[in-house]
Amino acid sequence: MSTARRTLADVLRTHAISRPDAVAFADGDVELTWRAANARVDRLAHALMQAGVERDDRVLWLGQNSFRLQEMLLASCKVGAMFCPANWRQQEAELAFVIDDLTPKVVIWQEEEVGPTVAAGRDASTHAGAARWICHDTGDYEEWLNEIPAGVPDPDADVGHAFPLLLIYTAAFEGRPNAAMLSSRALIAQGLLMAPWSGIDADYVFLNSGPLFHIGTFMPNLSTFASGGTNVFVRRSDGEALCEAIAQHRCTGGFVVGPMVDAIVTANAANRYDLSSFRGKRGNPTFDAWVQRDDSVWGRHAGGYGQTEVMGMATFNLLGVGGIGTHGRPSPLVDVRVVDEDDNELPAGETGEIIVRGLTVMCGYWNRFELSEFRARNDWHHTNDLGRFETDGTFTFVGPKTRMLKSAAENIYPVEVENCLKEHPAVADCAVIGVPDDTWVQAVKAIVVLQVGAQVDADELIAHARARIASYKKPRYIEFTDAIPRRGFAVDYDALDARYGGGNYPGGTTRSA
Amino acid sequence: MSTARRTLADVLRTHAISRPDAVAFADGDVELTWRAANARVDRLAHALMQAGVERDDRVLWLGQNSFRLQEMLLASCKVGAMFCPANWRQQEAELAFVIDDLTPKVVIWQEEEVGPTVAAGRDASTHAGAARWICHDTGDYEEWLNEIPAGVPDPDADVGHAFPLLLIYTAAFEGRPNAAMLSSRALIAQGLLMAPWSGIDADYVFLNSGPLFHIGTFMPNLSTFASGGTNVFVRRSDGEALCEAIAQHRCTGGFVVGPMVDAIVTANAANRYDLSSFRGKRGNPTFDAWVQRDDSVWGRHAGGYGQTEVMGMATFNLLGVGGIGTHGRPSPLVDVRVVDEDDNELPAGETGEIIVRGLTVMCGYWNRFELSEFRARNDWHHTNDLGRFETDGTFTFVGPKTRMLKSAAENIYPVEVENCLKEHPAVADCAVIGVPDDTWVQAVKAIVVLQVGAQVDADELIAHARARIASYKKPRYIEFTDAIPRRGFAVDYDALDARYGGGNYPGGTTRSA
Repeated sequence: MSTARRTLADVLRTHAISRPDAVAFADGDVELTWRAANARVDRLAHALMQAGVERDDRVLWLGQNSFRLQEMLLASCKVGAMFCPANWRQQEAELAFVIDDLTPKVVIWQEEEVGPTVAAGRDASTHAGAARWICHDTGDYEEWLNEIPAGVPDPDADVGHAFPLLLIYTAAFEGRPNAAMLSSRALIAQGLLMAPWSGIDADYVFLNSGPLFHIGTFMPNLSTFASGGTNVFVRRSDGEALCEAIAQHRCTGGFVVGPMVDAIVTANAANRYDLSSFRGKRGNPTFDAWVQRDDSVWGRHAGGYGQTEVMGMATFNLLGVGGIGTHGRPSPLVDVRVVDEDDNELPAGETGEIIVRGLTVMCGYWNRFELSEFRARNDWHHTNDLGRFETDGTFTFVGPKTRMLKSAAENIYPVEVENCLKEHPAVADCAVIGVPDDTWVQAVKAIVVLQVGAQVDADELIAHARARIASYKKPRYIEFTDAIPRRGFAVDYDALDARYGGGNYPGGTTRSA
Repeated sequence: MSTARRTLADVLRTHAISRPDAVAFADGDVELTWRAANARVDRLAHALMQAGVERDDRVLWLGQNSFRLQEMLLASCKVGAMFCPANWRQQEAELAFVIDDLTPKVVIWQEEEVGPTVAAGRDASTHAGAARWICHDTGDYEEWLNEIPAGVPDPDADVGHAFPLLLIYTAAFEGRPNAAMLSSRALIAQGLLMAPWSGIDADYVFLNSGPLFHIGTFMPNLSTFASGGTNVFVRRSDGEALCEAIAQHRCTGGFVVGPMVDAIVTANAANRYDLSSFRGKRGNPTFDAWVQRDDSVWGRHAGGYGQTEVMGMATFNLLGVGGIGTHGRPSPLVDVRVVDEDDNELPAGETGEIIVRGLTVMCGYWNRFELSEFRARNDWHHTNDLGRFETDGTFTFVGPKTRMLKSAAENIYPVEVENCLKEHPAVADCAVIGVPDDTWVQAVKAIVVLQVGAQVDADELIAHARARIASYKKPRYIEFTDAIPRRGFAVDYDALDARYGGGNYPGGTTRSA
């Protein structure tokens, strides 16, 4: 029903009326009020339409953070198109894959720092010639925008809040990455839910210093946007840029972690920047002396279980403080269940696949019809992750269900056995495979790397596992080695199978989607 | 897309897993955990199905507050039916109208206090014989429920979150009342939005002491429900019952105002009840000494503009503190606009009809197809209320657009002129009508009651108006009288028209829907 419509562009439209002179976006010396931002987005939407962009078309962003990224998202929404900010750290072939997978009508790209790789990806792509390419940091973009006069009407395409808007590629441990399609409703609902928990309101100034091709940065961005606060953008997270942004725009929060904290401490050694508006101590005494404490409930109990496909968080630690589980309780926006291979609900204490249903679940993967159907089977989103409800109703995320073994009728997830073995003080690393077994189809074999100087035998490790997980999950065989083979972060199970005799996996090598 | 489903019953289902042993509902000595409540609702849903209730059917509640009211709402949701808690203060003919308007399959009614009126309404209704009648406070209801064995499967009708669930009759100043149909999505979204603003979380215990046939009580009820807190029910708001409920269940908040505060002070004169869990001082020193301060942002800046048709609030005072307007800013769940008679958006400062679009807007009125279409014209919900955006973007609610005058091409809303005149210190009361005018179709006439002992002439009042509202809106004629005729709270404009020569109204007497 269209009186229920509420798209991300509608949020902008109403803020333009109800907060006309407040600052929506800031980026270096650029400051756009809500009224000005809405007027620019109207013109950008017309520029997109002139470039041939219609409803359901894709607009691709190949660059770093910028206020232009956010206004292109909103302009895409106004014409009913989808917008994808791609990972700018990708290499030539990966970028070419994204271009050919999305087949965008318009690509906005960046010259500085990523220009050469983008150009190489463009050359390697077959679709690139069919798209309009606009460079956002050399004047092209503003020239393109200036072809549209001020005062053009809001195009206001008739799209609903369940329409796919933001496309985010998920990590692909194996095979190609997939772009999760997130609706306006998912973006707004998650933003509004988390805003008060994070202390975000109309006075909040969020520093977009994490990558906007990642849902983690988009969550507080959207909390701030939906609340009428200010989003500040920095292209990259070097110390000087972060200090300048915080001091100039009086940022109240932002994605500032690990080496970014050290970089800020270095950049501000002479105390040139006033960082006192920033909330969030980071355990670095120098940094912490400059900033305020974050007293929000999210600040005190951040995290939970989630994935891009459910717009970030599906459970929140802050909803289960002090409980048995390690990942809180389900978000009030979704239902969460734990099921076996046949989608039968498992009782508390039993580990299975996490399934999710609700307002923040993705519309499916772009251009992956069969996979989308498979992941949405029985009207639940199947996360391909493992978890369990504890007896007190709190939730524990176990790990990705990338592989499954089968011993008789029992399903065994290597990650669960691996986590268990890694809890033993002598174990530095390990990986679990299934080896053919005449009686039970497969038997569990663990490949273990010991801590330097540690000594433990197979029986002790098997006893350790038997005391902690169901007996059928414990390793029957243990082999010791010096290093687990990996491809990037992911364990190379194929190599392990080849070397240690793995095989007889149910449904082929893996059950991974 | 069904992986996005999230009904009110789904909230119950997930709480039953994630908060199994926490108390969901309390009512006197009855305490139901989330797990127990979900199991009862499963059985009630089967009882409804056995009584012939199918998807789209109505279930009517003719009684006061009870935990059974809330579980019937949830059972209705599980079978895809709609649930209406009707105003139990209504008289026989009004109740008969509701019964015949809703044509429910099942009516749950109450013997105590309202039994005789309900019986008379039942006798006066033509539909009553076709419904199954179950008395909730004499054992009938529990007997009916006990026909369904424990452990029946969750019926889990395939209904979406946009499906009508809660039906609330709106006040009918003129003509018959209409039942606004509110979806699960509207109920959940409003509840979740307001929960953190109200300080409501899983530890909150809300005292349902206001009537549940009114959306005002349902908003905090749903905030508590969605957050996993406890809803406590009292049948009526007498002092002893309120004290007992607060002390027994350690209520943290509730609808306790005006005479209810006095009743509590009287009932607790001997300090028999510990009310220290309750948050919310009320300006009564005795009461305030017993309770805590409500430090929530809603507690400090409650209110805004709203109506039942938009699930309560559409603007929030807390979003516009210190602004020009009197009613804050739009809820982040909806878009709000102010338009003229042709749905053209009006600029800041101009008064027109308030229109709303978004996640909390009703699905329409039950059994009022044409009216629903009319109110939803151009894909916006037309509130039939008047308001304006101020130049700073804050919002002012002017009053109900029950009548409109026309002077030449200009629309004049009597309520705006009346509010303006009432600001004059000499004016105690007033009402504005339109009298026929050969040149301008209508001219504005104000009927004024002066404060006791005050003296002012027509010219001064007209000058007062001209200084404050557009010149064409100022009264041309003023007549003084001793009292404005009323029907209940509403001005009797028909009587005024007859007595003071009103006429030539555009589109007949009124433009009211």
